[in-house]
Amino acid sequence: MIDLYTASTPNGWKVSVVLEELGLPYNVHAIDLMSQAQKQPEFLAINPNGRIPAIIDHDPADGGEPITVFESGAIMVYLAEKAGRLMPQDTRGRFSCLQWLMFQMGGIGPMMGQANVFFRYMPEKIPTAIARYQNESRRLFEVLDRRLGESEWLAGSEFSIADIANWCWVRTYKWSGVSVEELPNLRRWLDAIKTREACLKGVTIPHPMPSLDDDGAEEAKANFVKGAQTMVQR
Amino acid sequence: MIDLYTASTPNGWKVSVVLEELGLPYNVHAIDLMSQAQKQPEFLAINPNGRIPAIIDHDPADGGEPITVFESGAIMVYLAEKAGRLMPQDTRGRFSCLQWLMFQMGGIGPMMGQANVFFRYMPEKIPTAIARYQNESRRLFEVLDRRLGESEWLAGSEFSIADIANWCWVRTYKWSGVSVEELPNLRRWLDAIKTREACLKGVTIPHPMPSLDDDGAEEAKANFVKGAQTMVQR
Repeated sequence: MIDLYTASTPNGWKVSVVLEELGLPYNVHAIDLMSQAQKQPEFLAINPNGRIPAIIDHDPADGGEPITVFESGAIMVYLAEKAGRLMPQDTRGRFSCLQWLMFQMGGIGPMMGQANVFFRYMPEKIPTAIARYQNESRRLFEVLDRRLGESEWLAGSEFSIADIANWCWVRTYKWSGVSVEELPNLRRWLDAIKTREACLKGVTIPHPMPSLDDDGAEEAKANFVKGAQTMVQR
Repeated sequence: MIDLYTASTPNGWKVSVVLEELGLPYNVHAIDLMSQAQKQPEFLAINPNGRIPAIIDHDPADGGEPITVFESGAIMVYLAEKAGRLMPQDTRGRFSCLQWLMFQMGGIGPMMGQANVFFRYMPEKIPTAIARYQNESRRLFEVLDRRLGESEWLAGSEFSIADIANWCWVRTYKWSGVSVEELPNLRRWLDAIKTREACLKGVTIPHPMPSLDDDGAEEAKANFVKGAQTMVQR
């Protein structure tokens, strides 16, 4: 059994979507970001960085003591390797997958995260910073669009953790105030993933968060915004 | 033979340091960020994201056509696996290494990069943004310091690509305006890596960049800052 420590954010969803896609059994431990539960000693013992998600795998492949893994990107690779799915096995496919996963970890995630901070959470409105992160996110969307114009999925012909990692962020484009207009390949990919039941289930873990959905940001509640200021993402 | 497309930045160094540590032969192709060479069609054919570094391995392990890999984090894993060094082979060690590599990709890199943008490169000085990224970088330094208080290296008892990835950024702390005071474990680790010849060689590729060294930022030249504005990092 796997213990998943998570919250309803794009980085949290990355892991619950992978677990749902793989059909691995897991226990959800919802971490209350509003009360800063992720900064308490019990959680810091699991992830010293005080960020969700993290997992503890009680049945690791080597048969030894439970393994703890933090950082969503590392957890995704761990689970894909454990199950032997969602990541190509050959060298070319694996590194195509890994590079598009890293693209999300170092690009899409931080840039959309900062767009959210300046566009949504910070009381002071700084137009230069808002524009910077929304423009950079849009540029990265255009890179994804070009890739998806030449390949069905990001890593190649197979759906993989690279798609899941990027999708969990890109699907919240309205929340970040970034347009997907005139990006037909990206929209084709967004629509295709929305037909996968496991993906749709994964993004309701630990709680549904309609305000972050691609068609839900308009209905976001003011009290959510207020609460979110306490969980400012990178 | 490996072709390395790079420039004198922390993300570029990550790969040249790994190549030096592994003793793998490589050809350096210096990409002139000032003239936006990374956005030209020839380079975009190698990395559609228009960012350095990227590699082409002409002797891949599978014996097939050359393999292109972009995103520094993916390249580091690729080279470590190719050589069977700089990354533990057992599952626990590998994922300890991978999670601290991801910590750099999603944390240290983007946050120090944004600190540089607002502190060094952007003509408009926005105190809220400067403080945000310097404070978050310092918080991440404190996480590293705690880890290095319990472990010789980030992944465990072995020096690995996790150390290289984080070091290439952390060593530029003065450039980012972030203090390493009262972080004795981090400083012990910085000093230890400075005794490794391959690391010191790697950070001179493709050109020495003393202004980014841990004791060099004070001498940074104004014309470098001006030029750097054209290569604004995330």
